[in-house]
Amino acid sequence: MGNSWIDEVRWNNDGLVAAIAQDQATNEILMMAWMNRESLQLTISEQRAVYWSRSRQAIWRKGESSGHTQQLKSIRLDCDADAIILAVEQSGDIACHTGRRSCFYRELDTSSDQPCWKIVAPVLKDPQDIY
Amino acid sequence: MGNSWIDEVRWNNDGLVAAIAQDQATNEILMMAWMNRESLQLTISEQRAVYWSRSRQAIWRKGESSGHTQQLKSIRLDCDADAIILAVEQSGDIACHTGRRSCFYRELDTSSDQPCWKIVAPVLKDPQDIY
Repeated sequence: MGNSWIDEVRWNNDGLVAAIAQDQATNEILMMAWMNRESLQLTISEQRAVYWSRSRQAIWRKGESSGHTQQLKSIRLDCDADAIILAVEQSGDIACHTGRRSCFYRELDTSSDQPCWKIVAPVLKDPQDIY
Repeated sequence: MGNSWIDEVRWNNDGLVAAIAQDQATNEILMMAWMNRESLQLTISEQRAVYWSRSRQAIWRKGESSGHTQQLKSIRLDCDADAIILAVEQSGDIACHTGRRSCFYRELDTSSDQPCWKIVAPVLKDPQDIY
């Protein structure tokens, strides 16, 4: 049958798989989100990242309100088939709703006795100007 | 209190957070696994990747049997605090139990009517020689 590739994904109990979006040129990790079967199929057919929003319980076409879409370049699956990588081209160079390039903008600073998450990446565009 | 940084992580219903290991030099994504509070604290204190094995329900010091440890360089947290990136130095250049560099060694081939996951990365060492 034509969908065997999608059945090879090991969907979790909620019917989801973890999806990591990675910049195809720099290998920077932009974000991690989740996909259900429908969103993965839409990602392939539309050649752009389409996630499943767990908070809204709805299909989430990345960039539908911000314009910061992610054009699909390739998809990889890991050895136990419960995580995928999307190599993407990030429109607007901004993946995060905070207006930063990557959602992973906080780094653990262990230089003092009290470790803390320190912001290490700039806001490129004010979120108020995005949404 | 000294653990506020760890309370900023949004642990899921199983008490876990997704952890992506990324090569600090090349930015290649090596694997994705899970951590509980204890494994994240051990990762910091031992400066090496320590995961939580969901299948074994046990602390999993990456490389404890293979020798393919991951030395910690930095940790990042994403905007909704449910995923972290470990920048690591990968011992033996092999992260995957299949003997490959990365666990993400299958790529979706959509060149024919029947898409399929195609192996795109070589086995660097026979798993029988690793374990």
